[in-house]
Amino acid sequence: MLGAPEIGVGMLGYAFMGKAHSNAFKKIAYMTWPPPLEPRLVGIAGRNAEAVREAAERYGYEYATGDWHELIADDRIGLFDNGGPNSLHAEPTIAAAEAGKHVICEKPLGRDADESYEIWRQVAATGVKHLCGFNYRFVPAARLAREMIESGELGEIRHFRGRYLQDWGDDPTLDTWRFHPDEAGSGALGDLGTHVVDLARFLAGEIDAVSGFAKTFLPGRSVDDAIEAAVQFAGGAVGTIEATRLALGRRNAFQWEINGTKASLAFDMERLNELQVFRADGDRARGFKTVLVSETDHPFMSHWWPPGHIIGWGDTFVHELNHVLQAIVDDGDVAPFGATFEDGYRAAEVCDAIVRSGQSGQREQIRYRTIGV
Amino acid sequence: MLGAPEIGVGMLGYAFMGKAHSNAFKKIAYMTWPPPLEPRLVGIAGRNAEAVREAAERYGYEYATGDWHELIADDRIGLFDNGGPNSLHAEPTIAAAEAGKHVICEKPLGRDADESYEIWRQVAATGVKHLCGFNYRFVPAARLAREMIESGELGEIRHFRGRYLQDWGDDPTLDTWRFHPDEAGSGALGDLGTHVVDLARFLAGEIDAVSGFAKTFLPGRSVDDAIEAAVQFAGGAVGTIEATRLALGRRNAFQWEINGTKASLAFDMERLNELQVFRADGDRARGFKTVLVSETDHPFMSHWWPPGHIIGWGDTFVHELNHVLQAIVDDGDVAPFGATFEDGYRAAEVCDAIVRSGQSGQREQIRYRTIGV
Amino acid sequence: MLGAPEIGVGMLGYAFMGKAHSNAFKKIAYMTWPPPLEPRLVGIAGRNAEAVREAAERYGYEYATGDWHELIADDRIGLFDNGGPNSLHAEPTIAAAEAGKHVICEKPLGRDADESYEIWRQVAATGVKHLCGFNYRFVPAARLAREMIESGELGEIRHFRGRYLQDWGDDPTLDTWRFHPDEAGSGALGDLGTHVVDLARFLAGEIDAVSGFAKTFLPGRSVDDAIEAAVQFAGGAVGTIEATRLALGRRNAFQWEINGTKASLAFDMERLNELQVFRADGDRARGFKTVLVSETDHPFMSHWWPPGHIIGWGDTFVHELNHVLQAIVDDGDVAPFGATFEDGYRAAEVCDAIVRSGQSGQREQIRYRTIGV
Amino acid sequence: MLGAPEIGVGMLGYAFMGKAHSNAFKKIAYMTWPPPLEPRLVGIAGRNAEAVREAAERYGYEYATGDWHELIADDRIGLFDNGGPNSLHAEPTIAAAEAGKHVICEKPLGRDADESYEIWRQVAATGVKHLCGFNYRFVPAARLAREMIESGELGEIRHFRGRYLQDWGDDPTLDTWRFHPDEAGSGALGDLGTHVVDLARFLAGEIDAVSGFAKTFLPGRSVDDAIEAAVQFAGGAVGTIEATRLALGRRNAFQWEINGTKASLAFDMERLNELQVFRADGDRARGFKTVLVSETDHPFMSHWWPPGHIIGWGDTFVHELNHVLQAIVDDGDVAPFGATFEDGYRAAEVCDAIVRSGQSGQREQIRYRTIGV
Repeated sequence: MLGAPEIGVGMLGYAFMGKAHSNAFKKIAYMTWPPPLEPRLVGIAGRNAEAVREAAERYGYEYATGDWHELIADDRIGLFDNGGPNSLHAEPTIAAAEAGKHVICEKPLGRDADESYEIWRQVAATGVKHLCGFNYRFVPAARLAREMIESGELGEIRHFRGRYLQDWGDDPTLDTWRFHPDEAGSGALGDLGTHVVDLARFLAGEIDAVSGFAKTFLPGRSVDDAIEAAVQFAGGAVGTIEATRLALGRRNAFQWEINGTKASLAFDMERLNELQVFRADGDRARGFKTVLVSETDHPFMSHWWPPGHIIGWGDTFVHELNHVLQAIVDDGDVAPFGATFEDGYRAAEVCDAIVRSGQSGQREQIRYRTIGV
Repeated sequence: MLGAPEIGVGMLGYAFMGKAHSNAFKKIAYMTWPPPLEPRLVGIAGRNAEAVREAAERYGYEYATGDWHELIADDRIGLFDNGGPNSLHAEPTIAAAEAGKHVICEKPLGRDADESYEIWRQVAATGVKHLCGFNYRFVPAARLAREMIESGELGEIRHFRGRYLQDWGDDPTLDTWRFHPDEAGSGALGDLGTHVVDLARFLAGEIDAVSGFAKTFLPGRSVDDAIEAAVQFAGGAVGTIEATRLALGRRNAFQWEINGTKASLAFDMERLNELQVFRADGDRARGFKTVLVSETDHPFMSHWWPPGHIIGWGDTFVHELNHVLQAIVDDGDVAPFGATFEDGYRAAEVCDAIVRSGQSGQREQIRYRTIGV
Repeated sequence: MLGAPEIGVGMLGYAFMGKAHSNAFKKIAYMTWPPPLEPRLVGIAGRNAEAVREAAERYGYEYATGDWHELIADDRIGLFDNGGPNSLHAEPTIAAAEAGKHVICEKPLGRDADESYEIWRQVAATGVKHLCGFNYRFVPAARLAREMIESGELGEIRHFRGRYLQDWGDDPTLDTWRFHPDEAGSGALGDLGTHVVDLARFLAGEIDAVSGFAKTFLPGRSVDDAIEAAVQFAGGAVGTIEATRLALGRRNAFQWEINGTKASLAFDMERLNELQVFRADGDRARGFKTVLVSETDHPFMSHWWPPGHIIGWGDTFVHELNHVLQAIVDDGDVAPFGATFEDGYRAAEVCDAIVRSGQSGQREQIRYRTIGV
Repeated sequence: MLGAPEIGVGMLGYAFMGKAHSNAFKKIAYMTWPPPLEPRLVGIAGRNAEAVREAAERYGYEYATGDWHELIADDRIGLFDNGGPNSLHAEPTIAAAEAGKHVICEKPLGRDADESYEIWRQVAATGVKHLCGFNYRFVPAARLAREMIESGELGEIRHFRGRYLQDWGDDPTLDTWRFHPDEAGSGALGDLGTHVVDLARFLAGEIDAVSGFAKTFLPGRSVDDAIEAAVQFAGGAVGTIEATRLALGRRNAFQWEINGTKASLAFDMERLNELQVFRADGDRARGFKTVLVSETDHPFMSHWWPPGHIIGWGDTFVHELNHVLQAIVDDGDVAPFGATFEDGYRAAEVCDAIVRSGQSGQREQIRYRTIGV
C-alpha cells in the first residue's frame, strides 16, 4: 500500500479505450493524491494474443489473457473495466458483477435499449457499483456547467442543442468493428450520439420525445453515418441532437449550448478546457465569457496544475475512474455526477427512439423502463 | 441624372426595415459607383402620420402619406418597396405590381404558404421584377459560399445545420406587431426561421421533408418563440434548422455550417465579415480558415474599403437593392443570387411544414406548387 | 433646412479618405437623427481633375476644383475637411482656419512633430474647432473602453500593448504617395503607428519615454515598413507599440490590450464590433467576455440597428464627424473624446521619439511643447 | 526491463516542477511506446523532509532525501533532473555532470548570464547530455512551427512578437522563492521572459540587440513584475518581447506570432493544441487556419490519441524528457529540437541585456560567449 488500499483491476480491451483507461488508472495513483484506492493492474484480456501481451507489458498488467473469463475468475480483481467492442459489453459485464466485482462499461452500454436494459437490470441486482463510460461528464467544463445549473444560476432551461461532429468516416476502405452492426449495434448513433444524449440528460434533464432519423451516406456501409433529431425535454426545454462522422474538418467537435432564463453556456470538446458563459447580470459589458476551467477551486483541477495550465482529453478518464474508486471506498452513489448503467440504458432508449422515428416518420415518445425493486 | 438614370422609389414602412432600406437606397447612389439606376426617394407610407412625416424628412422622401395607395397611384414611382408588417405584404405588393411597378417585399413573403403563393402567382403574372427581402444572401460571406458551392469546391453536400438565435423575446411586457398572429402570421418562425430556410435552400438546395415543431414558452404569447426541426434535402444532405428569440446572450446569431465531401463552411452573423473555410487539400496544417471576406475581388466588396476594413449589417441591403436595380436596368433575372417571390413562397412551404409536423407528430414531405405558365 | 441648420463642407481629397468622409457626412444627416447640423457638400478639391469631377458627381458636391484655395475662399463653407496627402495637411488647414472655418485634418497631423506643432499652434490661435482624424477613438468599443477607464472600472493601469498589423506593403512595384518621404513624412509609423500612439494616449494616458526603432525591409523603399518600441507612460504603465505593413495575413489588425488592477480589455479592429472584457469580480466563472458593442445604451449605437446588428469600419467616421458638428453647434470642446490638433501634435512627438531612439540607440524621454496662451 | 533498458532518475525538487517531471517520467514508459529507456524513479531530494517523503511515496521514488548530494553519490542514478529553485541550479547540476550523470535543469539555467555560462561550460566539459527545461519547444504546435520554418514554408522572417502574460503576481501577501532575488535571480524575466526568448531563438533565430527594461509594480517586491523590449534578430527580423505577472485575466497566455514572406504563424499557450497558420497560397478564401495540432503524422502525437483528442500542458514534459532519453540511448544531440545548456546560457544573455538596457537607457548589443573547445 502506498497512498491507499489497493483494488485489483481487470481490463477487457487493449486498444483505444484500453489505453485511455489504463493511463487513467496509473495516473490516479499519484495525481488525485491521496487516491481513494490504489489501482493495481492485475490482468488484461483481448482477442489478439500478441497485442494483448504487448498491452500488458506496456501498461504494467501482471498478466494478459485471450479469455476474459479468466479475469472474472480472478479473486484479486475487484473492479472489472469493460472497454471491448459493444457486442462484448453484456456478457462479461454481467458475469463480473455476478462474481461480485464492481463494473465499468464503455458506452454505449448495449447495442440497443433492450440489451442495455438487461445489462442494467442484471448488474443492479448484484449490488455492485456500476458506471457507464460517459467520460464527457468528467470534463471540468461539463461539471462546472452541472454545478451552475443545480445551483439555479441558469434559471429555467429553454434550449439544449448538441452535436458531435467528427470526420473520419468518409473512407470506404476503412474497416473496424465500429462499422459492423453485430459488433457495434449502430454507427455514429451509438458511438457519438449517445454522448450527446447523455450530456443532454446530465445538463437539461430527461428527454420526452424525439423527431428525427439516422442516415447512411456511404454505399455499402451497414451502420448509420449520421443522426439528426429535434427533441423535447420533460422540463419543457426543446432543442436538437446531431451526430455525424462526416463533418469534414471537425475532428472531435462535441459542441453543446444551453440557454436558460438567467444564463447560457456553450462548449466545444476541441477546446475542452473552456466553457462559454453568458450571465444576464445587468453588466453593460454584456457577452459570453471564455472561461478557462482550470481554477484550483474546481473539484477536478485541484490536483492538477496551476490555473491556465490546461489538461488533455485523456485526463477526463482520470476523473471518471477516480469517481468510481471514491464511490467504492465510500460505498456511495455513482450518480448523479457519474453515469450509472441506468443512465446507459436511458440513453439507449433515446437513441432507439431516433431510429424508430426515422422508420415510422413519427415523433416518438419515450417510455423508460424501471427495474422495479 | 447623376451617375445613372433615375428610378422613383415608394417605400411602405418607416421603422426598422424602412430605415434599413432607405439607408441602402441612399448609399447605392455613390457606393456601388456607377449605380445601375439612381434611386429617387419619392414617397413613403405608414400608419403613424407623425412618424412617417419624420421619416420622410429624415431620409429625404419627397412626401409622406398615411395611405399606401397613394404610392401605387404615383407614376413617378417605378419601384415599390414593402417593409411593412407581414399582414400588409400581400395587398399593396400585388397592387403595385399590377400598376407596373417592380416590387420588393420583406420576408416572410406572406403569413403562410397560401398567402405567399398568391403573392407570387399574382405578381409573377404581371411580369415585373420581384425580390423577397432575404438580405442575408447578400452578406459577402454567403455569396462567397454560394460561389464556392457552385464551382464544386465543396463536392457533394452532406450536412447543413442552421440556427438563428436571438434573445429579445423574453419580456412578457413587450408588445409589437411581431407578437400578433394576424399581423405577423407566426413568431420566430416567420421572422428568423425563414432566413434559415432561405439560406439552407440558397446553399444546400431544396428541402424535401422536415420533422419538428414550433414552441411557445411565454405565457400569454400568441406566436411561437422557437422552432426546431430535423431536415432532409432533395440532394441527399441532412441537418437541422432552428430559430429562437430566447437564446440568452445571442443577439443576432444566425449561424450555419455546411459539410461537403471536399470542404466545409461555417458562419455566424454576429461576425458577418468572416467565413470559416475548411478544405481537404492535403495540407499537413489542417484546419478551418477564418476568412475575412473583404477582399476587392469579391463582387460586393469591390466598391467598399480596402481589405480588412469591415462592413456592417446595414450594408447587406445596399448589395440587395443594388441587385434589384441591376436586374431592372438589364431586364435580367433576380434569381439565382437574389430571392424571388418564388423563393419567398418556397420558404413559406417549409415553415408551414414545420408547424404541421409539430401538430401531426409526423415527418412532413413538402410539395411545392408551381404557377404553371 | 431638414433636421437641422446647414453647414457647408469643403473637402480636400477624393480618394480613400475623401470617400470615407463623404459617406459619413451623407449618413450623419439621417443616421444620427436629428443631426446637430446638416452637412451640405459644397466643394471638393483634388489634383486629378477628372477624378475630382467624378468624386463631386458621385458624392454630390456642388462643385469640383483642382485648387484647394477655392474652398478656402468659399464663404458657404463653414467646415474644411482635409483628407489629402500628409504634405498637404499644413498649408490648407491653417489657411482654412485663418479664414474662420472649422477644420478637420486626417492623421498624421503633420509629417513630423515640428510641422504638427505649427499646425496646432496656428490653428489654435484662430479659435476654430479642430479635430485630428484619429477615427479609431470613434469605434464603439474604444469609447466603451474609455468610459470604463474613466469610471474607474479598470483600476490602476499596468499595461498597454498595441500593434497595428497590415500586410499590403510587401510589393516592390507598388507606388503611392505613402511611400514618398516628402509627401508622407514616414511609412508605417505615420500611417499606422500614430493610430496606436493616439489610442494608447486616449486609454492609458500620456507617454513619457520610448525605446525602439523604425525598420525598412524592402530594398529601395524610402520610408519605414515597421516600427517597434517599448514604452513608459506617465501614469506608471508600461508596454509596447508596434506597427507594420508586413504582417502577412493581417489586413487591418489594429490590436490593443490594457491590463488594469481591476479589469483588462482587449480589442482587434478586424472584429471592431467586439471588446474583450475581463473583470476581477470574484465570479467563479472567470474569463474574458466577448462583448458585442452594439447595445442601444451606447452613445454611438443609439441611432443604428438593434443589438447584434453590427456596424462597419466606415461608420466610425459618422461618429467622428458627428462629434465635430456637435462641438460646433454647442461651441463645445472636441476633447476629450475627439482628438484635437494638440493630440495630433503629441502623437507626432511620440512617433519622432521612436525614430530618434532608433538612431541614437537610447531611450528617448518625450517633452511636449505647449502653445502658451 | 519492460519495454526498454532502465535508466535511474534522481530528481531534485518535489513541488511544481517535481510533479510535472515525475508525471512525465512515469508516462514515458507506456505512452511513447516503446520508450527509448525505461525511467526508474530512484531518489528524490528536497529541503522539506515531510514533503519530499510524501512526494517519494506519491510518485514512486525508491527513497527521499533532504540532501541532494545523496543523489549525486548514487550510482544507480544515470540521469539527474534539477527542478529546484534557481539558486540550486548550478552546484547540484555541475556536480551531477561531473559524476557522469546526464543532466536536465529547469529554466532559467542560472540566475544570470554569468552563472548560466559557468553551468554550461562546466557541464559541457564532462561530455554528458544536458537539456535546459524550455518545455515549450515540446508543444506540438511549436515543433510544427519549427518544422515549417526549417522547410522554408515561411520564407524570410520579418517579425516575431512574443509575450508571456500571467496574472498571479498581484498579491502583496504572496511569498515564494520566486520573489526572492537570491533564490530566483529575477522575477517575471527569468520565469516567463526566458521562455519567450527561447522560443524566439528557436523559431526566429539569434537575437542581436534589445531596447527595453524591467519594471517592478508592487511596493516592497524585490524582483521585476514585468519586462518590455523591442528586439532585433541577427537574420533581420524585428519585434517585441514582453513578460508580466500582472496581466489580469491572462492565466498562462504565452502568445507569439511570426510573420514571414510566405506564411505567418500565431499561438497562445492557453490553447496549446492549436496553431494559427496563414499561407500566401493565392487561395481566394484567405485567412488564418486554426490548426488543431493533434494529427498522427506529428512526431509528438503519434503515440497519443486520435486526431482532435487534445493533450494537456503536462504532456509537453513527456515529449521533452523522452527527447533526452532518446539522445542518451542514441548518443545523439539534444539540439536543435531540445534546448541545451548553451541555449539556456544564450537566453540568459538576452535577459541580462534587457535589464542592462533598462538601467543604461541604451540599446544593448548582445555578445555571446563561447566555451572554446
